[in-house]
Amino acid sequence: MHIDGLTQLIAHLGHPTHSFKAPMIYNPYFESVGVNAVVVPMDCRAEDFPQVLRSVFALDNVRGALITMPLKVSVVPLLDEVTPTVKVAGACNAVRRGASGRLAGDMFDGEGFVRGLRGKDFRVEGAQALVVGCGGVGSAIAASLAAAGVGSLALFDVDAAAMDRLAARLREHYPALRVTTGDRDPAGRDLAVNASPLGMEPGDPLPMDASRLEARTFVGEVVMKTETTPLLAAAQARGCRVQVGTDMLFEMIPAYLEFFGFPTTDAQTLRSVARVRY
Amino acid sequence: MHIDGLTQLIAHLGHPTHSFKAPMIYNPYFESVGVNAVVVPMDCRAEDFPQVLRSVFALDNVRGALITMPLKVSVVPLLDEVTPTVKVAGACNAVRRGASGRLAGDMFDGEGFVRGLRGKDFRVEGAQALVVGCGGVGSAIAASLAAAGVGSLALFDVDAAAMDRLAARLREHYPALRVTTGDRDPAGRDLAVNASPLGMEPGDPLPMDASRLEARTFVGEVVMKTETTPLLAAAQARGCRVQVGTDMLFEMIPAYLEFFGFPTTDAQTLRSVARVRY
Repeated sequence: MHIDGLTQLIAHLGHPTHSFKAPMIYNPYFESVGVNAVVVPMDCRAEDFPQVLRSVFALDNVRGALITMPLKVSVVPLLDEVTPTVKVAGACNAVRRGASGRLAGDMFDGEGFVRGLRGKDFRVEGAQALVVGCGGVGSAIAASLAAAGVGSLALFDVDAAAMDRLAARLREHYPALRVTTGDRDPAGRDLAVNASPLGMEPGDPLPMDASRLEARTFVGEVVMKTETTPLLAAAQARGCRVQVGTDMLFEMIPAYLEFFGFPTTDAQTLRSVARVRY
Repeated sequence: MHIDGLTQLIAHLGHPTHSFKAPMIYNPYFESVGVNAVVVPMDCRAEDFPQVLRSVFALDNVRGALITMPLKVSVVPLLDEVTPTVKVAGACNAVRRGASGRLAGDMFDGEGFVRGLRGKDFRVEGAQALVVGCGGVGSAIAASLAAAGVGSLALFDVDAAAMDRLAARLREHYPALRVTTGDRDPAGRDLAVNASPLGMEPGDPLPMDASRLEARTFVGEVVMKTETTPLLAAAQARGCRVQVGTDMLFEMIPAYLEFFGFPTTDAQTLRSVARVRY
Protein backbone atom coordinates (compact mmCIF):
# COMPACT_ATOMS: atom_id res chain seq x y z
CA MET A 1 0.00 0.00 0.00
CA HIS A 2 1.22 3.44 -0.85
CA ILE A 3 -0.20 6.75 0.37
CA ASP A 4 0.76 9.99 -1.35
CA GLY A 5 -0.70 13.40 -2.07
CA LEU A 6 -3.11 12.00 -4.66
CA THR A 7 -4.57 9.28 -2.44
CA GLN A 8 -8.35 9.33 -2.06
CA LEU A 9 -9.88 8.48 1.29
CA ILE A 10 -12.82 6.42 2.40
CA ALA A 11 -13.52 7.49 5.97
CA HIS A 12 -14.57 4.50 8.08
CA LEU A 13 -16.48 6.09 10.95
CA GLY A 14 -17.54 4.33 14.13
CA HIS A 15 -16.71 3.88 17.80
CA PRO A 16 -14.75 2.02 18.92
CA THR A 17 -12.71 1.08 15.88
CA HIS A 18 -10.65 -1.82 17.22
CA SER A 19 -12.78 -4.53 15.59
CA PHE A 20 -12.97 -2.82 12.17
CA LYS A 21 -12.33 -5.25 9.34
CA ALA A 22 -13.02 -3.11 6.26
CA PRO A 23 -9.48 -1.65 5.99
CA MET A 24 -8.04 -5.16 5.71
CA ILE A 25 -10.47 -6.05 2.90
CA TYR A 26 -10.63 -2.86 0.82
CA ASN A 27 -7.02 -1.75 1.10
CA PRO A 28 -5.41 -4.97 -0.15
CA TYR A 29 -7.97 -4.97 -2.96
CA PHE A 30 -7.19 -1.35 -3.93
CA GLU A 31 -3.50 -2.22 -3.86
CA SER A 32 -4.02 -5.32 -5.99
CA VAL A 33 -5.78 -3.35 -8.74
CA GLY A 34 -3.64 -0.20 -8.52
CA VAL A 35 -6.35 2.12 -7.19
CA ASN A 36 -4.84 5.00 -5.18
CA ALA A 37 -7.40 4.96 -2.38
CA VAL A 38 -7.42 3.86 1.23
CA VAL A 39 -10.02 3.07 3.88
CA VAL A 40 -9.01 4.88 7.06
CA PRO A 41 -10.56 4.14 10.47
CA MET A 42 -11.85 7.25 12.21
CA ASP A 43 -12.87 6.71 15.82
CA CYS A 44 -15.84 9.03 16.24
CA ARG A 45 -18.14 9.27 19.25
CA ALA A 46 -21.85 9.81 18.68
CA GLU A 47 -21.86 13.33 20.14
CA ASP A 48 -19.19 14.51 17.70
CA PHE A 49 -20.60 12.77 14.65
CA PRO A 50 -22.74 15.54 13.05
CA GLN A 51 -19.77 17.92 12.96
CA VAL A 52 -17.29 15.21 11.96
CA LEU A 53 -19.46 14.02 9.07
CA ARG A 54 -19.69 17.54 7.65
CA SER A 55 -15.95 18.00 8.07
CA VAL A 56 -15.09 14.70 6.42
CA PHE A 57 -17.06 15.69 3.33
CA ALA A 58 -15.45 19.14 3.35
CA LEU A 59 -12.17 17.38 2.48
CA ASP A 60 -11.61 17.36 -1.28
CA ASN A 61 -9.87 13.99 -1.32
CA VAL A 62 -12.61 12.12 0.57
CA ARG A 63 -14.46 9.87 -1.85
CA GLY A 64 -17.01 8.59 0.63
CA ALA A 65 -17.66 7.23 4.09
CA LEU A 66 -18.43 3.85 5.60
CA ILE A 67 -20.63 4.29 8.65
CA THR A 68 -20.78 1.69 11.38
CA MET A 69 -21.83 1.28 15.01
CA PRO A 70 -23.02 3.37 16.83
CA LEU A 71 -23.61 5.83 13.99
CA LYS A 72 -25.62 3.86 11.40
CA VAL A 73 -28.99 5.11 12.64
CA SER A 74 -28.07 8.64 13.65
CA VAL A 75 -26.52 9.31 10.24
CA VAL A 76 -29.88 9.10 8.45
CA PRO A 77 -31.30 12.52 9.42
CA LEU A 78 -27.93 14.13 8.59
CA LEU A 79 -28.22 13.20 4.90
CA ASP A 80 -29.85 15.03 2.01
CA GLU A 81 -30.86 11.97 0.00
CA VAL A 82 -31.47 8.38 1.08
CA THR A 83 -32.77 5.32 -0.73
CA PRO A 84 -35.94 3.38 0.17
CA THR A 85 -33.59 0.70 1.52
CA VAL A 86 -32.25 3.20 4.04
CA LYS A 87 -35.77 4.26 4.97
CA VAL A 88 -36.92 0.69 5.57
CA ALA A 89 -33.71 -0.41 7.29
CA GLY A 90 -33.77 2.73 9.40
CA ALA A 91 -30.03 2.90 8.98
CA CYS A 92 -27.34 3.81 6.48
CA ASN A 93 -23.79 2.57 6.17
CA ALA A 94 -22.45 4.29 3.04
CA VAL A 95 -22.35 8.00 2.21
CA ARG A 96 -21.08 9.80 -0.87
CA ARG A 97 -21.45 13.23 -2.43
CA GLY A 98 -24.51 13.45 -4.65
CA ALA A 99 -25.40 16.25 -7.06
CA SER A 100 -24.33 19.75 -5.91
CA GLY A 101 -22.40 18.29 -3.00
CA ARG A 102 -25.54 16.92 -1.35
CA LEU A 103 -24.87 13.97 0.93
CA ALA A 104 -26.39 10.76 -0.38
CA GLY A 105 -26.70 7.57 1.67
CA ASP A 106 -27.42 3.95 0.95
CA MET A 107 -27.40 0.70 2.92
CA PHE A 108 -25.71 -2.43 1.65
CA ASP A 109 -25.76 -4.91 4.55
CA GLY A 110 -28.88 -6.54 3.14
CA GLU A 111 -27.72 -6.11 -0.44
CA GLY A 112 -24.75 -8.32 0.40
CA PHE A 113 -27.12 -10.96 1.67
CA VAL A 114 -29.26 -10.77 -1.50
CA ARG A 115 -26.23 -10.84 -3.81
CA GLY A 116 -25.03 -13.92 -1.97
CA LEU A 117 -28.36 -15.63 -2.60
CA ARG A 118 -28.30 -14.73 -6.28
CA GLY A 119 -24.73 -15.99 -6.58
CA LYS A 120 -26.02 -19.35 -5.33
CA ASP A 121 -28.78 -19.34 -7.96
CA PHE A 122 -31.55 -18.72 -5.46
CA ARG A 123 -34.44 -16.92 -7.17
CA VAL A 124 -35.28 -13.95 -4.92
CA GLU A 125 -38.12 -12.55 -7.02
CA GLY A 126 -41.44 -13.82 -5.76
CA ALA A 127 -39.90 -15.88 -2.93
CA GLN A 128 -41.79 -16.50 0.30
CA ALA A 129 -39.30 -15.35 2.94
CA LEU A 130 -39.01 -15.54 6.73
CA VAL A 131 -36.69 -13.19 8.61
CA VAL A 132 -36.12 -13.93 12.30
CA GLY A 133 -34.65 -10.91 14.05
CA CYS A 134 -35.81 -7.36 13.34
CA GLY A 135 -32.86 -5.41 14.72
CA GLY A 136 -30.35 -3.59 12.56
CA VAL A 137 -29.20 -6.44 10.36
CA GLY A 138 -32.66 -8.03 10.12
CA SER A 139 -34.17 -4.72 9.07
CA ALA A 140 -31.44 -4.27 6.47
CA ILE A 141 -32.01 -7.76 5.04
CA ALA A 142 -35.78 -7.28 5.00
CA ALA A 143 -35.32 -3.95 3.21
CA SER A 144 -33.09 -5.48 0.55
CA LEU A 145 -35.33 -8.52 0.11
CA ALA A 146 -38.26 -6.15 -0.43
CA ALA A 147 -36.26 -4.07 -2.92
CA ALA A 148 -35.26 -7.28 -4.72
CA GLY A 149 -38.91 -8.28 -5.17
CA VAL A 150 -39.70 -11.10 -2.75
CA GLY A 151 -43.33 -12.22 -2.81
CA SER A 152 -43.93 -12.16 0.92
CA LEU A 153 -42.03 -11.37 4.10
CA ALA A 154 -42.77 -13.00 7.43
CA LEU A 155 -41.09 -11.17 10.30
CA PHE A 156 -40.38 -12.38 13.81
CA ASP A 157 -38.69 -10.86 16.82
CA VAL A 158 -39.09 -11.36 20.56
CA ASP A 159 -39.10 -7.55 20.66
CA ALA A 160 -42.60 -7.14 19.21
CA ALA A 161 -42.33 -3.36 19.01
CA ALA A 162 -39.21 -3.55 16.82
CA MET A 163 -40.95 -6.16 14.65
CA ASP A 164 -44.03 -4.02 14.25
CA ARG A 165 -42.02 -0.91 13.40
CA LEU A 166 -40.16 -2.79 10.67
CA ALA A 167 -43.43 -4.15 9.32
CA ALA A 168 -44.90 -0.65 9.21
CA ARG A 169 -41.89 0.72 7.32
CA LEU A 170 -42.07 -2.14 4.81
CA ARG A 171 -45.79 -1.62 4.25
CA GLU A 172 -45.28 2.12 3.76
CA HIS A 173 -42.56 1.76 1.12
CA TYR A 174 -43.69 -1.53 -0.48
CA PRO A 175 -47.51 -1.41 -0.31
CA ALA A 176 -47.87 -4.36 -2.70
CA LEU A 177 -45.68 -6.65 -0.58
CA ARG A 178 -47.40 -9.13 1.75
CA VAL A 179 -45.89 -8.59 5.23
CA THR A 180 -46.84 -10.71 8.21
CA THR A 181 -45.55 -10.73 11.77
CA GLY A 182 -45.31 -13.02 14.77
CA ASP A 183 -44.83 -16.40 13.09
CA ARG A 184 -41.38 -17.95 12.84
CA ASP A 185 -42.38 -21.32 11.44
CA PRO A 186 -40.03 -22.00 8.52
CA ALA A 187 -42.37 -24.57 6.94
CA GLY A 188 -43.58 -23.56 3.50
CA ARG A 189 -40.94 -20.85 3.00
CA ASP A 190 -38.57 -20.57 0.09
CA LEU A 191 -36.11 -18.66 2.26
CA ALA A 192 -35.53 -18.68 6.02
CA VAL A 193 -33.08 -16.19 7.50
CA ASN A 194 -31.58 -15.95 10.94
CA ALA A 195 -30.86 -12.28 11.52
CA SER A 196 -30.95 -12.64 15.31
CA PRO A 197 -27.87 -13.08 17.53
CA LEU A 198 -28.90 -16.65 18.36
CA GLY A 199 -25.97 -18.88 17.47
CA MET A 200 -23.27 -16.58 18.77
CA GLU A 201 -23.04 -18.26 22.17
CA PRO A 202 -22.72 -21.99 22.94
CA GLY A 203 -26.05 -23.28 24.21
CA ASP A 204 -28.17 -20.67 22.40
CA PRO A 205 -31.54 -22.06 21.34
CA LEU A 206 -32.07 -22.28 17.59
CA PRO A 207 -33.71 -19.14 16.16
CA MET A 208 -36.40 -21.27 14.51
CA ASP A 209 -37.69 -24.83 14.66
CA ALA A 210 -35.24 -26.62 12.36
CA SER A 211 -37.37 -29.77 12.35
CA ARG A 212 -39.92 -27.80 10.32
CA LEU A 213 -37.42 -26.93 7.56
CA GLU A 214 -38.13 -28.42 4.16
CA ALA A 215 -35.28 -29.51 1.93
CA ARG A 216 -36.31 -26.96 -0.71
CA THR A 217 -35.90 -24.08 1.74
CA PHE A 218 -32.78 -21.97 1.44
CA VAL A 219 -31.39 -21.04 4.87
CA GLY A 220 -29.35 -17.92 5.41
CA GLU A 221 -27.39 -16.90 8.50
CA VAL A 222 -25.88 -13.62 9.70
CA VAL A 223 -23.90 -14.96 12.65
CA MET A 224 -20.25 -15.15 11.63
CA LYS A 225 -18.65 -16.24 14.88
CA THR A 226 -18.51 -19.78 13.52
CA GLU A 227 -18.86 -20.64 9.87
CA THR A 228 -21.39 -23.46 10.36
CA THR A 229 -23.74 -22.40 13.13
CA PRO A 230 -26.06 -24.94 14.78
CA LEU A 231 -28.91 -23.65 12.58
CA LEU A 232 -26.89 -24.15 9.39
CA ALA A 233 -25.78 -27.61 10.53
CA ALA A 234 -29.39 -28.59 11.17
CA ALA A 235 -30.46 -27.13 7.82
CA GLN A 236 -27.77 -29.00 5.93
CA ALA A 237 -28.76 -32.21 7.71
CA ARG A 238 -32.25 -31.69 6.30
CA GLY A 239 -30.91 -31.17 2.77
CA CYS A 240 -31.27 -27.39 2.65
CA ARG A 241 -28.89 -25.12 0.75
CA VAL A 242 -27.33 -22.54 3.04
CA GLN A 243 -25.49 -19.22 3.11
CA VAL A 244 -22.91 -18.53 5.83
CA GLY A 245 -22.57 -15.24 7.68
CA THR A 246 -19.36 -14.01 6.05
CA ASP A 247 -20.86 -14.42 2.56
CA MET A 248 -23.03 -11.38 3.28
CA LEU A 249 -19.95 -9.42 4.31
CA PHE A 250 -17.90 -10.11 1.20
CA GLU A 251 -20.87 -9.96 -1.19
CA MET A 252 -21.74 -6.44 -0.03
CA ILE A 253 -18.33 -5.01 -0.85
CA PRO A 254 -18.77 -4.97 -4.66
CA ALA A 255 -21.94 -2.95 -4.03
CA TYR A 256 -19.93 -0.41 -2.05
CA LEU A 257 -17.23 -0.26 -4.70
CA GLU A 258 -19.90 0.53 -7.31
CA PHE A 259 -21.53 3.10 -5.02
CA PHE A 260 -18.22 4.94 -4.53
CA GLY A 261 -17.36 4.67 -8.23
CA PHE A 262 -14.36 2.36 -7.92
CA PRO A 263 -13.56 -0.56 -10.23
CA THR A 264 -15.47 -3.51 -8.84
CA THR A 265 -14.88 -7.23 -8.57
CA ASP A 266 -16.50 -10.34 -7.17
CA ALA A 267 -16.68 -11.52 -3.58
CA GLN A 268 -14.35 -14.45 -4.19
CA THR A 269 -11.56 -12.17 -5.40
CA LEU A 270 -12.06 -9.95 -2.36
CA ARG A 271 -11.82 -12.95 -0.05
CA SER A 272 -8.59 -14.04 -1.74
CA VAL A 273 -6.79 -10.70 -1.27
CA ALA A 274 -8.21 -9.79 2.17
CA ARG A 275 -5.74 -9.70 5.05
CA VAL A 276 -8.37 -10.79 7.54
CA ARG A 277 -9.72 -14.27 8.23
CA TYR A 278 -13.04 -15.27 9.76
CA MET B 1 1.93 -0.80 5.40
CA HIS B 2 -1.06 -2.22 7.20
CA ILE B 3 -4.13 -0.32 8.39
CA ASP B 4 -6.52 -1.89 10.86
CA GLY B 5 -8.88 -0.87 13.63
CA LEU B 6 -6.01 0.00 15.98
CA THR B 7 -4.16 2.27 13.54
CA GLN B 8 -3.44 5.77 14.80
CA LEU B 9 -3.69 8.69 12.41
CA ILE B 10 -1.61 11.76 11.76
CA ALA B 11 -3.84 14.09 9.74
CA HIS B 12 -1.80 15.93 7.10
CA LEU B 13 -3.90 19.02 6.38
CA GLY B 14 -3.40 21.41 3.49
CA HIS B 15 -4.69 22.38 0.07
CA PRO B 16 -3.96 21.15 -2.48
CA THR B 17 -2.40 17.89 -1.36
CA HIS B 18 -0.89 16.64 -4.61
CA SER B 19 2.68 17.68 -3.76
CA PHE B 20 2.60 16.27 -0.20
CA LYS B 21 5.74 14.33 0.61
CA ALA B 22 5.27 13.52 4.32
CA PRO B 23 3.24 10.31 3.77
CA MET B 24 6.11 8.83 1.75
CA ILE B 25 8.60 9.64 4.52
CA TYR B 26 6.67 8.86 7.72
CA ASN B 27 4.70 5.83 6.56
CA PRO B 28 7.67 3.75 5.36
CA TYR B 29 9.42 4.67 8.61
CA PHE B 30 6.45 3.62 10.76
CA GLU B 31 6.28 0.38 8.80
CA SER B 32 10.02 -0.22 9.21
CA VAL B 33 9.83 0.07 12.99
CA GLY B 34 6.46 -1.64 13.46
CA VAL B 35 4.50 1.43 14.61
CA ASN B 36 0.79 1.12 13.79
CA ALA B 37 0.30 4.69 12.62
CA VAL B 38 -0.18 6.37 9.28
CA VAL B 39 0.07 9.90 7.89
CA VAL B 40 -3.08 10.56 5.84
CA PRO B 41 -3.42 13.52 3.44
CA MET B 42 -6.56 15.56 4.06
CA ASP B 43 -7.29 18.14 1.39
CA CYS B 44 -8.80 21.02 3.37
CA ARG B 45 -9.68 24.46 2.06
CA ALA B 46 -9.03 27.48 4.26
CA GLU B 47 -12.70 28.26 4.77
CA ASP B 48 -13.41 24.79 6.16
CA PHE B 49 -10.31 24.56 8.30
CA PRO B 50 -11.58 25.76 11.72
CA GLN B 51 -14.36 23.15 11.71
CA VAL B 52 -12.18 20.43 10.21
CA LEU B 53 -9.42 20.95 12.80
CA ARG B 54 -11.92 20.57 15.65
CA SER B 55 -13.38 17.48 14.03
CA VAL B 56 -10.00 15.87 13.42
CA PHE B 57 -9.15 16.17 17.11
CA ALA B 58 -12.59 14.84 18.06
CA LEU B 59 -11.46 11.50 16.59
CA ASP B 60 -10.06 9.23 19.30
CA ASN B 61 -7.48 7.60 17.02
CA VAL B 62 -5.95 10.85 15.78
CA ARG B 63 -2.53 11.28 17.37
CA GLY B 64 -1.79 14.66 15.85
CA ALA B 65 -1.84 16.84 12.77
CA LEU B 66 0.71 18.15 10.32
CA ILE B 67 -0.37 21.54 9.01
CA THR B 68 0.84 22.88 5.73
CA MET B 69 -0.01 25.53 3.10
CA PRO B 70 -2.30 27.47 3.14
CA LEU B 71 -3.19 26.71 6.77
CA LYS B 72 0.08 27.23 8.68
CA VAL B 73 -0.71 30.80 9.65
CA SER B 74 -4.47 30.55 10.16
CA VAL B 75 -4.04 27.60 12.53
CA VAL B 76 -2.30 29.71 15.19
CA PRO B 77 -5.37 31.51 16.61
CA LEU B 78 -7.28 28.19 16.66
CA LEU B 79 -4.90 26.69 19.22
CA ASP B 80 -4.95 26.82 23.02
CA GLU B 81 -1.19 26.68 23.56
CA VAL B 82 1.69 27.64 21.28
CA THR B 83 5.45 27.84 21.78
CA PRO B 84 7.56 31.01 21.46
CA THR B 85 8.81 29.53 18.18
CA VAL B 86 5.24 29.58 16.84
CA LYS B 87 4.79 33.14 18.03
CA VAL B 88 7.99 34.35 16.35
CA ALA B 89 7.48 32.33 13.19
CA GLY B 90 3.85 33.45 13.04
CA ALA B 91 2.98 29.95 11.92
CA CYS B 92 2.54 26.42 13.22
CA ASN B 93 2.90 23.11 11.44
CA ALA B 94 2.32 20.50 14.15
CA VAL B 95 -0.62 20.13 16.51
CA ARG B 96 -1.28 17.59 19.25
CA ARG B 97 -3.57 17.27 22.25
CA GLY B 98 -2.12 18.93 25.32
CA ALA B 99 -3.39 18.67 28.90
CA SER B 100 -7.21 18.33 29.21
CA GLY B 101 -7.58 17.97 25.46
CA ARG B 102 -6.28 21.48 24.79
CA LEU B 103 -4.78 21.90 21.34
CA ALA B 104 -1.04 22.53 21.47
CA GLY B 105 1.02 23.67 18.50
CA ASP B 106 4.68 23.89 17.65
CA MET B 107 6.73 24.72 14.57
CA PHE B 108 9.59 22.54 13.39
CA ASP B 109 10.62 23.90 9.97
CA GLY B 110 13.38 25.95 11.58
CA GLU B 111 14.17 23.24 14.12
CA GLY B 112 15.06 20.97 11.20
CA PHE B 113 17.45 23.61 9.92
CA VAL B 114 19.09 24.00 13.35
CA ARG B 115 19.35 20.24 13.90
CA GLY B 116 21.03 19.96 10.52
CA LEU B 117 23.60 22.57 11.55
CA ARG B 118 24.29 20.79 14.84
CA GLY B 119 24.66 17.47 13.03
CA LYS B 120 27.42 19.12 10.98
CA ASP B 121 29.16 20.31 14.17
CA PHE B 122 28.28 23.95 13.62
CA ARG B 123 28.07 25.71 16.99
CA VAL B 124 24.75 27.60 16.96
CA GLU B 125 25.07 29.12 20.42
CA GLY B 126 26.47 32.64 20.17
CA ALA B 127 26.76 32.57 16.37
CA GLN B 128 26.46 35.74 14.30
CA ALA B 129 23.77 34.81 11.79
CA LEU B 130 22.32 36.33 8.60
CA VAL B 131 18.93 35.23 7.32
CA VAL B 132 17.94 36.44 3.84
CA GLY B 133 14.19 36.05 3.30
CA CYS B 134 11.66 36.83 6.01
CA GLY B 135 8.64 34.93 4.66
CA GLY B 136 7.31 31.76 6.19
CA VAL B 137 10.44 29.64 6.11
CA GLY B 138 12.78 32.54 6.93
CA SER B 139 10.65 33.45 9.94
CA ALA B 140 10.66 29.82 11.07
CA ILE B 141 14.45 29.57 10.76
CA ALA B 142 14.96 32.88 12.55
CA ALA B 143 12.63 31.73 15.34
CA SER B 144 14.53 28.47 15.81
CA LEU B 145 17.94 30.16 15.62
CA ALA B 146 16.78 32.54 18.35
CA ALA B 147 15.47 29.66 20.46
CA ALA B 148 18.80 27.85 19.95
CA GLY B 149 20.75 30.83 21.31
CA VAL B 150 22.45 32.60 18.41
CA GLY B 151 24.34 35.73 19.38
CA SER B 152 22.90 38.02 16.74
CA LEU B 153 20.44 37.85 13.88
CA ALA B 154 20.71 40.04 10.77
CA LEU B 155 17.51 39.96 8.73
CA PHE B 156 16.98 40.94 5.11
CA ASP B 157 13.99 40.91 2.81
CA VAL B 158 13.03 43.01 -0.21
CA ASP B 159 9.63 43.17 1.54
CA ALA B 160 10.72 45.59 4.27
CA ALA B 161 7.40 45.35 6.10
CA ALA B 162 7.70 41.58 6.47
CA MET B 163 11.30 42.00 7.62
CA ASP B 164 10.33 44.60 10.22
CA ARG B 165 7.44 42.49 11.53
CA LEU B 166 9.77 39.52 12.02
CA ALA B 167 12.31 41.74 13.76
CA ALA B 168 9.63 43.07 16.09
CA ARG B 169 8.45 39.56 17.01
CA LEU B 170 12.03 38.46 17.69
CA ARG B 171 12.70 41.50 19.88
CA GLU B 172 9.49 40.92 21.82
CA HIS B 173 10.22 37.26 22.62
CA TYR B 174 14.04 37.43 22.78
CA PRO B 175 14.80 40.87 24.24
CA ALA B 176 18.45 39.98 24.86
CA LEU B 177 19.08 38.99 21.22
CA ARG B 178 20.73 41.53 18.91
CA VAL B 179 18.46 41.86 15.85
CA THR B 180 19.36 44.05 12.89
CA THR B 181 17.61 44.59 9.59
CA GLY B 182 18.35 45.71 6.05
CA ASP B 183 21.89 44.43 5.57
CA ARG B 184 22.52 41.22 3.63
CA ASP B 185 26.30 41.37 3.55
CA PRO B 186 27.53 37.90 4.58
CA ALA B 187 30.99 39.16 5.52
CA GLY B 188 31.81 38.61 9.18
CA ARG B 189 28.97 36.15 9.78
CA ASP B 190 29.35 32.69 11.24
CA LEU B 191 26.19 31.59 9.45
CA ALA B 192 24.53 32.86 6.26
CA VAL B 193 21.13 31.45 5.29
CA ASN B 194 19.17 31.76 2.11
CA ALA B 195 15.50 31.49 3.10
CA SER B 196 14.30 33.34 0.01
CA PRO B 197 13.05 31.67 -3.18
CA LEU B 198 16.11 32.86 -5.12
CA GLY B 199 17.71 29.80 -6.65
CA MET B 200 14.50 28.09 -7.68
CA GLU B 201 14.53 29.47 -11.22
CA PRO B 202 17.43 29.46 -13.71
CA GLY B 203 18.85 32.95 -13.97
CA ASP B 204 17.79 34.02 -10.47
CA PRO B 205 20.28 36.46 -8.93
CA LEU B 206 22.12 35.15 -5.88
CA PRO B 207 20.34 36.01 -2.61
CA MET B 208 23.55 37.53 -1.25
CA ASP B 209 26.97 38.66 -2.53
CA ALA B 210 28.86 35.37 -2.55
CA SER B 211 32.17 37.17 -3.20
CA ARG B 212 31.87 38.51 0.36
CA LEU B 213 31.61 35.01 1.92
CA GLU B 214 34.48 34.04 4.16
CA ALA B 215 35.65 30.39 4.25
CA ARG B 216 34.75 30.15 7.94
CA THR B 217 31.11 31.02 7.23
CA PHE B 218 28.62 28.19 7.17
CA VAL B 219 26.06 28.62 4.36
CA GLY B 220 22.58 27.14 4.60
CA GLU B 221 19.96 26.88 1.88
CA VAL B 222 16.22 26.21 1.87
CA VAL B 223 15.71 25.83 -1.88
CA MET B 224 15.41 22.11 -2.63
CA LYS B 225 14.66 22.21 -6.34
CA THR B 226 18.28 21.37 -7.00
CA GLU B 227 20.64 19.95 -4.42
CA THR B 228 23.52 22.32 -5.11
CA THR B 229 22.03 25.72 -5.83
CA PRO B 230 24.17 28.49 -7.38
CA LEU B 231 24.63 29.99 -3.90
CA LEU B 232 25.85 26.68 -2.46
CA ALA B 233 28.18 26.16 -5.44
CA ALA B 234 29.66 29.63 -4.93
CA ALA B 235 29.99 29.02 -1.19
CA GLN B 236 31.75 25.70 -1.69
CA ALA B 237 34.11 27.35 -4.21
CA ARG B 238 35.07 29.76 -1.43
CA GLY B 239 35.70 26.92 1.03
CA CYS B 240 32.52 27.28 3.06
CA ARG B 241 30.72 24.35 4.66
CA VAL B 242 27.12 24.12 3.47
CA GLN B 243 23.72 22.62 4.25
CA VAL B 244 21.38 21.65 1.37
CA GLY B 245 17.65 22.30 1.36
CA THR B 246 16.47 18.74 1.91
CA ASP B 247 18.60 18.40 5.05
CA MET B 248 16.17 20.73 6.79
CA LEU B 249 13.28 18.55 5.67
CA PHE B 250 14.66 15.26 6.94
CA GLU B 251 16.21 16.77 10.09
CA MET B 252 12.86 18.17 11.21
CA ILE B 253 11.11 14.81 11.15
CA PRO B 254 12.72 13.39 14.30
CA ALA B 255 11.47 16.54 16.06
CA TYR B 256 7.92 15.78 14.88
CA LEU B 257 8.21 12.15 15.95
CA GLU B 258 9.23 13.29 19.44
CA PHE B 259 6.42 15.86 19.52
CA PHE B 260 3.81 13.22 18.66
CA GLY B 261 5.34 10.72 21.09
CA PHE B 262 6.52 8.16 18.55
CA PRO B 263 9.84 6.30 18.66
CA THR B 264 12.33 8.57 16.96
CA THR B 265 15.35 8.07 14.74
CA ASP B 266 17.92 10.09 12.82
CA ALA B 267 17.54 11.91 9.53
CA GLN B 268 19.80 9.49 7.69
CA THR B 269 17.62 6.51 8.57
CA LEU B 270 14.56 8.44 7.45
CA ARG B 271 16.20 9.24 4.12
CA SER B 272 17.08 5.59 3.62
CA VAL B 273 13.50 4.30 4.10
CA ALA B 274 11.65 7.19 2.41
CA ARG B 275 9.79 6.37 -0.81
CA VAL B 276 10.39 9.85 -2.20
CA ARG B 277 13.48 11.29 -3.83
CA TYR B 278 14.55 14.92 -4.14
